[in-house]
Amino acid sequence: MEKIEKKRLESLRKAMAEHKIECCIINSTDPHQSEIPAAHWRGREWLTGFKSENGTNGIAVVTKDHAYVWTDNRFFIQARQQLEGTGFEMMPMDGPDAVDMIGWICDHIDSGQTVGIDGMTFCVDESEKMDRQFSEYGITMRTDFPMFDFFWEERPARPLNPLFIHDEDIVGETVDSKIGRVLEQVERSGTDAILVSALDDIAWITNLRSAGDISFSPVFVSYLYLDKNGRRVLFIDEEKMTGDVKAFLDSYNIEVRPYESVKKFVGQLPKTTRLLTDPRLTATGVYDHIDCEVVFGGEGVAKLKSVKNETMLSHWRTAMEKDGVALVKLFKWIDEEIPKGELTEMSIARKLRDCRLADPDCVDESFAAIVGWNGHGAIVHYEPSDETDVPVTGKGLLLIDSGGQYRQGTTDITRTIALGGEPTKEQKHDFTLVLKGMIALARATFPKGTRGTQLDILARQYLWNEGKAYYHGTGHGVGFFINCHEGPAQIRMNDVPAALEPGMVMSDEPGLYIEGKYGIRCENMLAVEHWKSNEYGDFYRWRNLTLFPFDKSLIEWEIMTPEEKGWLDAYHKEVYDRLSPLLSEEEKGWLRAKTNFKD
Amino acid sequence: MEKIEKKRLESLRKAMAEHKIECCIINSTDPHQSEIPAAHWRGREWLTGFKSENGTNGIAVVTKDHAYVWTDNRFFIQARQQLEGTGFEMMPMDGPDAVDMIGWICDHIDSGQTVGIDGMTFCVDESEKMDRQFSEYGITMRTDFPMFDFFWEERPARPLNPLFIHDEDIVGETVDSKIGRVLEQVERSGTDAILVSALDDIAWITNLRSAGDISFSPVFVSYLYLDKNGRRVLFIDEEKMTGDVKAFLDSYNIEVRPYESVKKFVGQLPKTTRLLTDPRLTATGVYDHIDCEVVFGGEGVAKLKSVKNETMLSHWRTAMEKDGVALVKLFKWIDEEIPKGELTEMSIARKLRDCRLADPDCVDESFAAIVGWNGHGAIVHYEPSDETDVPVTGKGLLLIDSGGQYRQGTTDITRTIALGGEPTKEQKHDFTLVLKGMIALARATFPKGTRGTQLDILARQYLWNEGKAYYHGTGHGVGFFINCHEGPAQIRMNDVPAALEPGMVMSDEPGLYIEGKYGIRCENMLAVEHWKSNEYGDFYRWRNLTLFPFDKSLIEWEIMTPEEKGWLDAYHKEVYDRLSPLLSEEEKGWLRAKTNFKD
Repeated sequence: MEKIEKKRLESLRKAMAEHKIECCIINSTDPHQSEIPAAHWRGREWLTGFKSENGTNGIAVVTKDHAYVWTDNRFFIQARQQLEGTGFEMMPMDGPDAVDMIGWICDHIDSGQTVGIDGMTFCVDESEKMDRQFSEYGITMRTDFPMFDFFWEERPARPLNPLFIHDEDIVGETVDSKIGRVLEQVERSGTDAILVSALDDIAWITNLRSAGDISFSPVFVSYLYLDKNGRRVLFIDEEKMTGDVKAFLDSYNIEVRPYESVKKFVGQLPKTTRLLTDPRLTATGVYDHIDCEVVFGGEGVAKLKSVKNETMLSHWRTAMEKDGVALVKLFKWIDEEIPKGELTEMSIARKLRDCRLADPDCVDESFAAIVGWNGHGAIVHYEPSDETDVPVTGKGLLLIDSGGQYRQGTTDITRTIALGGEPTKEQKHDFTLVLKGMIALARATFPKGTRGTQLDILARQYLWNEGKAYYHGTGHGVGFFINCHEGPAQIRMNDVPAALEPGMVMSDEPGLYIEGKYGIRCENMLAVEHWKSNEYGDFYRWRNLTLFPFDKSLIEWEIMTPEEKGWLDAYHKEVYDRLSPLLSEEEKGWLRAKTNFKD
Repeated sequence: MEKIEKKRLESLRKAMAEHKIECCIINSTDPHQSEIPAAHWRGREWLTGFKSENGTNGIAVVTKDHAYVWTDNRFFIQARQQLEGTGFEMMPMDGPDAVDMIGWICDHIDSGQTVGIDGMTFCVDESEKMDRQFSEYGITMRTDFPMFDFFWEERPARPLNPLFIHDEDIVGETVDSKIGRVLEQVERSGTDAILVSALDDIAWITNLRSAGDISFSPVFVSYLYLDKNGRRVLFIDEEKMTGDVKAFLDSYNIEVRPYESVKKFVGQLPKTTRLLTDPRLTATGVYDHIDCEVVFGGEGVAKLKSVKNETMLSHWRTAMEKDGVALVKLFKWIDEEIPKGELTEMSIARKLRDCRLADPDCVDESFAAIVGWNGHGAIVHYEPSDETDVPVTGKGLLLIDSGGQYRQGTTDITRTIALGGEPTKEQKHDFTLVLKGMIALARATFPKGTRGTQLDILARQYLWNEGKAYYHGTGHGVGFFINCHEGPAQIRMNDVPAALEPGMVMSDEPGLYIEGKYGIRCENMLAVEHWKSNEYGDFYRWRNLTLFPFDKSLIEWEIMTPEEKGWLDAYHKEVYDRLSPLLSEEEKGWLRAKTNFKD
């Protein structure tokens, strides 16, 4: 079976030959290092056929004789399947059989030959590292090979969706205040100006959003330049401007210039300017144009963005209520539909999207919903598609991980439910171990300075005590009507240096995956808040945000402690008390039965 | 009040003036980066009067007008007291008022002036970092200023205690095997030879020990060179050799050369030699003589040393029994003596030493015992001395942290007991929180790859849940008849990258300190062992090593879970079963009452 991608690979090789490139490396991101780039920059997926709605982690390497896509263990199975017949093969970037990509390239092309990359899709950090490694082997790396310009004829245009203003009433801080805080960091790092490349940082600073530029996040394609002399420049396609937005930007003295002109602009800054630039977020293709002094840094913007103020947190409560209502409608519908035997993963995913988007404040899902029935639930990054869809019939576990982009805050929730009758003993036991872990993390208190790594074991401990484990992170930062995944804090096994601070919002999502059988994950969102200060220091705790019941039919009550039962009861009472005023009588009855708390 | 140290400071300033040194930095370690150096290298303590048996963390900085000792928060109170009248003042190296030492120096001496250090007491890493910082300010750093050579007239000689062989039956591995494993690391790092500077690494590799060179550890002052061509050279003072040891070294083809000749030796290695050198363990004063290619690395030796084989672990069981017997004798004696009202911290410390050293296999304590009564127990690094000694009378808590250097293994144990009547509710509650934490860590199971940082919260969680905390590490690696503190794994809040591996032996020692009132710490030693392997990976658990009961009168039973009570009961049964055959009838009776387990 030969696929269309084979032709594309031939075209690439032709372009490589014409440009005297012996090896080409194709990255999966955009000039802003986005986790999910706009279609315009999803050339690696288009070229190789290894793709998904939520984005795939992959780097393609093409030489005259070889074509590979390096990816991580989450995608091994999917990549192997999708790459069949494309001319590409899968290469593992982690796990026991991991192959070092740069090492492989150095072994397979000769000293004196040339590697080509599109410098707009590699950050400075990565491309400098690659360049150093290639130099040792006498290999030249060219960063000016925008391969897709030469043969991707029906390439989607850069997205041109209009901007809109994210109300200051909702975000609780003016653009001036945010710019002021960013410039304090510029000052502290002894620099004069900053170039911001990350789309979520720019959306956060400018209080602007756009629906549709990037799937699942209301960010917009742009660059932002700020300096100590008060100069503020937004580089963006003119088509995205509306009168309101233009007036809003004017009111903050933010100049608008064409998106592409950023390169010329940074090239013409006075030579004495010290420009703060984040080497992990700035594209090499932009960086190479800078002619003034560069100081690496600026990761502090993400830190500022990650700490949410009380106004945002109070609106997030509203978003959680809206999301809870949508989920009540979905899960009630599933209960009603299941006897008919016509549900499929895809029909549930579509209904879920409809339930959320029924609210005018919900502009998009926050990622493509994971709806995994039995064995599919055990594939951690499974997204149902028309090719993989299965009927949700018979007995089993259904895992749904999903979220919405509400103007009042982004949501991200996972629930696992039993359908078609009493779950097995093993299913209940495993579910309860996961739930106990989720509760243990949610109940944690900790002193100032604590990092997510230190708390991570709380969510894993009950699994580890039985020789079971999951190997994904336990929690990620969640943005506010912006990217669902954000830094700098994380809750995971490997150490991430950012400490948890009051106002940070994190997911809490332990899981367990029994290959071919079922997957379990329980996920709530939690906000760090100040608890108490005393002679031992400042202590923090979590405030729960997410509102939807856990499936009590999956709980093995014998292994739940009184404290855990008390937590769950109080949680279910809060879910009912806050959602029921927003529900119909029939929905209320359904929720009362599901929450079933002690009054 | 003027102290003798003031005269010493004057002499130092005279020497500085003669050598045209405007600022002198004096470190607390020896040419081997020992935590507790031999008296010969304790010049910083001698100069400043800020000292203790277990060593003090301090760096002195002297200019024409200023004299400071930088130290960390553990020593603030002690340093302030001891420095009074010496001409030196304390400077905080951490905490909210921390002063950056190098920054201070750069602010207080002029460009063009000279800083002098003794390169033998700074490792390459530190002195290179200082040099870079000084260069930025136009300050010259000289590493050839051995200040004490010029005015410390009664300086103790380098220790010349004889070596003895640590039986291969006890350590379970020949010197050839160890050297082979070190040379595998040399091979893997693409080098030809290694220079080993750390005294515990050398003692481990050579299966040799010496009593008295360094307090509390049977290591000996030396360097070791190993290369791929089979050359093995021990640099050591000839006086330390005995016939047996000479024959032993001969049998392993280890040449002996004079200690001081190491500098000349590394200076004459063939220029093509690639020498593996650990920049954090090698003295600058040695490094500066190397004339061949240096490759930084070699920290893997500490890793090899940290993983104990089954022979060592089985002998460690014997050491723990010997230590348990010594502690039974001590604590029984305390019970008998307390009514007489004549005990003091120092008399208890002396008795403790006698109890341990009564065993011919115990060559020394593993550190100066911490015996802290009430308020003294709240000073984390308190060591009783004739100046601080207080009577142990009335009611209160006694904290004893101590250990022994047995040929069968090093011990380190802390017990806190109530004396003089029923402890208060608060004391019982606090003790139980600490004990619960110690038990939680001891009961932990975890997958391969887990680092101590990930487990650390298990020991702290019950304290954090009440807004209480301790700020020292929870656990350190313990050496085998060698340094009581060793790396690379640690259990602490900040991340230490070394994973826990089967065979590593760690302390488990949470605590709580109520200033001016009492200190509580519970400490056992634990060995990592393989538990099970399955589809989720390899899982490890802890094997308990330490054998001595916890004070049951300090337990608030209401907050102990059935699992914790079960653990404690089984532990106390093991303590009794293993110690009682080694005790007199009277001691047995005492221990039976203290352990009081359910049969």
